[in-house]
Amino acid sequence: MERTLAKDVKEHIGGQVLLKGWVHALRVMGKLNFIVLRDRTGTVQTKIKGYDNSDGSLKEEASIKILGAVVTDERAPNGFEVDIEKLEVISTTFDTPPIQVNRSREQIGTRLETLLSHRPLSLRNPEIGGVFKIRAEIIWGFREFLKSQGFLEVQTPKIVAAGTEGGTALFAVQYFEQKAYLAQSPQFYKQMLVGSGYERVCEVGAVYRAEEHNTTRHLNEYISLDYEMGFIEDFHEITTMETELLRFIFANLEKSCARELELYKIEVPKVPSEIPHMKLSEAGDILKKNFKKNMNGDIDPEGEQLICKYVKEKTGSDFLFMTHYPTENRPMYAFPCEDDPKLTNSFDLLFRGLEITSGGQRIHDYEQLTSSIRGRGLNPADFDFYLEIFKYGMPPHGGLAIGAERLTCQLLNLANVREASFFPRDRNRIVP
Amino acid sequence: MERTLAKDVKEHIGGQVLLKGWVHALRVMGKLNFIVLRDRTGTVQTKIKGYDNSDGSLKEEASIKILGAVVTDERAPNGFEVDIEKLEVISTTFDTPPIQVNRSREQIGTRLETLLSHRPLSLRNPEIGGVFKIRAEIIWGFREFLKSQGFLEVQTPKIVAAGTEGGTALFAVQYFEQKAYLAQSPQFYKQMLVGSGYERVCEVGAVYRAEEHNTTRHLNEYISLDYEMGFIEDFHEITTMETELLRFIFANLEKSCARELELYKIEVPKVPSEIPHMKLSEAGDILKKNFKKNMNGDIDPEGEQLICKYVKEKTGSDFLFMTHYPTENRPMYAFPCEDDPKLTNSFDLLFRGLEITSGGQRIHDYEQLTSSIRGRGLNPADFDFYLEIFKYGMPPHGGLAIGAERLTCQLLNLANVREASFFPRDRNRIVP
Repeated sequence: MERTLAKDVKEHIGGQVLLKGWVHALRVMGKLNFIVLRDRTGTVQTKIKGYDNSDGSLKEEASIKILGAVVTDERAPNGFEVDIEKLEVISTTFDTPPIQVNRSREQIGTRLETLLSHRPLSLRNPEIGGVFKIRAEIIWGFREFLKSQGFLEVQTPKIVAAGTEGGTALFAVQYFEQKAYLAQSPQFYKQMLVGSGYERVCEVGAVYRAEEHNTTRHLNEYISLDYEMGFIEDFHEITTMETELLRFIFANLEKSCARELELYKIEVPKVPSEIPHMKLSEAGDILKKNFKKNMNGDIDPEGEQLICKYVKEKTGSDFLFMTHYPTENRPMYAFPCEDDPKLTNSFDLLFRGLEITSGGQRIHDYEQLTSSIRGRGLNPADFDFYLEIFKYGMPPHGGLAIGAERLTCQLLNLANVREASFFPRDRNRIVP
Repeated sequence: MERTLAKDVKEHIGGQVLLKGWVHALRVMGKLNFIVLRDRTGTVQTKIKGYDNSDGSLKEEASIKILGAVVTDERAPNGFEVDIEKLEVISTTFDTPPIQVNRSREQIGTRLETLLSHRPLSLRNPEIGGVFKIRAEIIWGFREFLKSQGFLEVQTPKIVAAGTEGGTALFAVQYFEQKAYLAQSPQFYKQMLVGSGYERVCEVGAVYRAEEHNTTRHLNEYISLDYEMGFIEDFHEITTMETELLRFIFANLEKSCARELELYKIEVPKVPSEIPHMKLSEAGDILKKNFKKNMNGDIDPEGEQLICKYVKEKTGSDFLFMTHYPTENRPMYAFPCEDDPKLTNSFDLLFRGLEITSGGQRIHDYEQLTSSIRGRGLNPADFDFYLEIFKYGMPPHGGLAIGAERLTCQLLNLANVREASFFPRDRNRIVP
């Protein structure tokens, strides 16, 4: 007999089903056992009379197999339940679970550190685990939209010989006799692949930042959603692409994650037909004038939150492209502004106060790029592997990177970006 | 004016197009310049009379922009070409390319090592670069099919505290004060996530093998296509799923990669409705009887090739599930055979003589798993992070891993698996 999933049981009212899953909740009322079975698609109430549990194997979080009749009952959740004809414990529990899976996240109340230490078990909680259905659909939307726009999906090496930005915050790897590093970003490789003739490439991959700070916004290993596109006329092509991408991603979430969005009481944000753009210098002026905050040509997390609130009030947009960052705050490949070489054709995308994207146009001229590298006190010879393709008709190009965990976290109003990573790696944690 | 891609020019015969791309070939015949323009979708012939190239910037592999009229001409390839009205060199070349991009792969004739050293440039060659359109579509098919079967796509950590198989062939990472390693496989994590209630998970991710051997079949960093499924009745559910997966992948390739398959003169293999299964011991008997080859309960690459040829002749199948590997050759989590505990419910998938998949059923019982770990001389306490979820109703489960580069390589008859990796990492190479 074929297995029926919890979400499909209602289609079998009056019939028989075979269910498999975990004991989400167990209530014994005299001779009557109520078992809420949970599988990957949801829960369903079942009941059995006079079950012999003398060996004690039927417990919450044990996995079970049920054969039963689907019957209507006004008292049951959704008006139906399953009368068990046969119940088999497939695999029992060997210990009392350190987390009570069937409570709401608020009721569990456990510290995040404890939840993370027992991560596989805590993910069984529908709210905690539901984060990753949202995340998976965000990632699916990212790739699917870009595929429709002619992007090739690539996978670039994470073991690299040199850092993207000159050697700081790199994790070292002993690679046989050679010293290697974990890639901080696929930046060099995605640019090289634009130049390899693919023109438009995207990647969903891990990136590594050996940063010491342990904040609610940082992970040392995270999933970066990258794209890079060639033959652009200006950097607005990149922001326009992201605007359409976000619209596609959110429209898909509404369709595919209704259950999870409801658990989190979330409505997906509206992406305006044109996301507001604001120069960093303009943001500085507004912060000074309206909030008495002096940013000195840069912006900090608090400034980002204030400016996002300001833009939300003025335009209704949850998103803001902050543009024209100073050359000195951007990497050596950032394309200088035509009318002010102290600034770059670069941008961040802020979403409800948090930076979720960094991007911009890149220098494509070989001589300009080597000179920019030299200007940073770096040696172009160290970047030969990256620079070679720039000798052969490298087209104007640019792109961006979206932090998958940050976007998920911000969308669901999670307090800590770790909640959007299956097994977060931070300053202290490499297990589980 | 909107850009037209090379593949779409034929739809504009009689009209005007804006093209962008690289100079694939340049022939000067008196005052007439023939330029074959190449973009990410293919090539198109264009021509211009009396172009002033006195600065020499118009060269093969420069990137250009063309405005022109699409006209029919019997002498042109496909019967049409573009009469250039305006030609702009966007970005010229600064050097003579070390590889002649517009030749056939055979004509280029350069050693693979040299091609890899100039990888971004050599990928511009349509044959060399076309490998990755095939690879991308294989990966797309993998995810798309599994999504339709209820699998959640996951990304698990690549920085880990312990190896999957007891500490050999691991790359060490200095993780702040802690010693960590690069993951050899997502094995532990995908099992844990099955137990986390997702039941069915898949991952496309890098894996790392610090193996010293430098063969045409090995990479030290490669892309593993993994899935793991819970609540199975036996390990045939895993091989059936792979059979349907392969059918889906190849059907998609035929639709989406016609141009690349033609370049490689490849027909995608037929996946039989049931791929033949053969026990390893049976293969040993056949090798002994028919090929005078004594395998002593194991099989080597030559044996795999011979047995695949044998099966191809007998059944017509390019694929073979080799099953029931001995316990001593499989990891500690391999599920023992019901009728012979010296064997396991495990399999490899051989494709035209090469192993492209390894998989099997896993032990799900907590006590059986800890005892198996002890039996290998390992300490269960070192695997606490993995074992915890097995205490809480872990369902019967199993899965497999497909090497993305090996599958691509074998499908296209490439001589070396490195040709199916954008930037291969091997015993000596970490650049480009």
